[in-house]
Amino acid sequence: MPRFLASPVALQVIDAILTAPKLYLTSHIAPDGDTMGSTLGLYWGLQQIGKQTRIACADPVPASFRFLPGHELFKAQLPEPDELIVIPDASDLQRLGSIYDAALYANRPLINIDHHVTNVCFGTLNWIEPAAASTAEIITELLDALGVQIDETIAACLLTGIATDTLGFRTNSTTADLMETAARLMRAGASLPRIIEKTFNTRDLADLKMQGQVLAAMRTEDGLIWSDNTVQMRRAAGASESGGAGMGNTLLSVQGVRVSVVFIEKNNRQVEVSFRARAGYDVSQLAFRLGGGGHPQAAGCLLSASLEQAHELVLPLTRALLNGHAAAHGV
Amino acid sequence: MPRFLASPVALQVIDAILTAPKLYLTSHIAPDGDTMGSTLGLYWGLQQIGKQTRIACADPVPASFRFLPGHELFKAQLPEPDELIVIPDASDLQRLGSIYDAALYANRPLINIDHHVTNVCFGTLNWIEPAAASTAEIITELLDALGVQIDETIAACLLTGIATDTLGFRTNSTTADLMETAARLMRAGASLPRIIEKTFNTRDLADLKMQGQVLAAMRTEDGLIWSDNTVQMRRAAGASESGGAGMGNTLLSVQGVRVSVVFIEKNNRQVEVSFRARAGYDVSQLAFRLGGGGHPQAAGCLLSASLEQAHELVLPLTRALLNGHAAAHGV
Repeated sequence: MPRFLASPVALQVIDAILTAPKLYLTSHIAPDGDTMGSTLGLYWGLQQIGKQTRIACADPVPASFRFLPGHELFKAQLPEPDELIVIPDASDLQRLGSIYDAALYANRPLINIDHHVTNVCFGTLNWIEPAAASTAEIITELLDALGVQIDETIAACLLTGIATDTLGFRTNSTTADLMETAARLMRAGASLPRIIEKTFNTRDLADLKMQGQVLAAMRTEDGLIWSDNTVQMRRAAGASESGGAGMGNTLLSVQGVRVSVVFIEKNNRQVEVSFRARAGYDVSQLAFRLGGGGHPQAAGCLLSASLEQAHELVLPLTRALLNGHAAAHGV
Repeated sequence: MPRFLASPVALQVIDAILTAPKLYLTSHIAPDGDTMGSTLGLYWGLQQIGKQTRIACADPVPASFRFLPGHELFKAQLPEPDELIVIPDASDLQRLGSIYDAALYANRPLINIDHHVTNVCFGTLNWIEPAAASTAEIITELLDALGVQIDETIAACLLTGIATDTLGFRTNSTTADLMETAARLMRAGASLPRIIEKTFNTRDLADLKMQGQVLAAMRTEDGLIWSDNTVQMRRAAGASESGGAGMGNTLLSVQGVRVSVVFIEKNNRQVEVSFRARAGYDVSQLAFRLGGGGHPQAAGCLLSASLEQAHELVLPLTRALLNGHAAAHGV
């Protein structure tokens, strides 16, 4: 039972793809499983129906996604004038990073397929489905509509998108429909245990030690929990810049906590701020105001600031969000 | 499509339950989501078909399962002579703890429904399905066969068993069949996000700090990783005796690690040893030899020993397991 094909723009997207002679698909920077899996799933589907297609990403494919069939085809390459540009899973064009070129993108069709509620609708066709837990679910239906047979290769790519964006079926967006789509992709040959093994179970020892440090630095007050991931801590643990990232969900899992914030001090005097919220709280607007974006329950932004400045800017806003919510609910 | 009803013993179990005037169901000690969810799911199903049923557990219901409908019905009570005893999810009778009474259990029918490969078949009817990721999946099919309509209450209990025993769909035993059963229980009204919230996302702050300490104490060598959870560490973190338990999967997620061991020093000079293994390695036999049991990928035992003695006993055996595996594969 399709959930997203009822959208009026879906038919226009299908028509544009079917009539395009050549296509160019691009993932977003800091690529995650959903942008990589959606791009590759669509790529293999288009191969099956005889479309000439190239795929691009400004950043290298992270080690944990190098098991995906076709990952080596990602290149930091620009679109050609005769290619139809399709962008899965990016909420704005800045998410394309260094391979976004305003002149090259001007005055041409641009297909934007995404599930982020903060998507700024930068395309000429914008197929945005915030009810989807992952862009991969939208791509699954798109491929069905294009007449593609979802084989093991495509299924592995799409299930990677679904499994990673739901944090392994743990988000509030995990529905019976989603579980059935996952089961269908498994029946088509995708191995969920293998995807879990590759994406969740290949932690670096130094990164895990780093996580221990982030846990040790936790502070809490009235439903808010936060911690730091500093250059100094990473140096002590021997961890990489990405080491210990993604702790926001762990912090959020503490009883009574409603919003978690992790401040990741980058090596270049920037601070990446990662927000997570329980159902009923929306951190996407907060992240959006700070120049970032995301989902109500998971969002982030990048600040040009010291760690201390980031605390001073972000923590009062987060407290206000929690208090505003309490006020709105008469608590 | 039933997977387990084809077992010849299934029909005998169904017949025994249908003809029993009264039933007594009991969960195992240190109750987990599968024993609680399976017992309660079966309980509510039997209520629906008019059976007089009582449920028992030697230990109190852990806080994280007190959302399950009927959890307050668990009592440390003994079976009556006219009750049919049904034991879901226990690999041996010692798992019943203080409410096991050899005299009361002698010379009477005993129904053993389980998915642990190390089950010792203590029942008069032993319905053991090691291919099931959880006992709850077997109970789902049993209820279908009994003519029970799986409603929201029953579905919530059974989905809790499935979601917890697969560590949230992360074990190798997570199949398309299992995902479809999960989807079916969600369609019947069970909320997976709520179950995840209650069982995975209600961590204690002190316990999480304790986890940071367990991570800090990690040691690795050639595919083996281990750590300690000591009385002293728990005291420093302000954590309970169960604080920081369940770190085995986190340790196992480190790249290159094949077996993890966590030594939990109890407050009474006993050491609980928790083993986790990647696919292709079997720690259940090792745990079984040490007086415990479990699954190939997750097993444990309880030693009356000091922490140092436990290290000296367990680590060489674990190294031998890894080396034996290497030798068997000509590595």
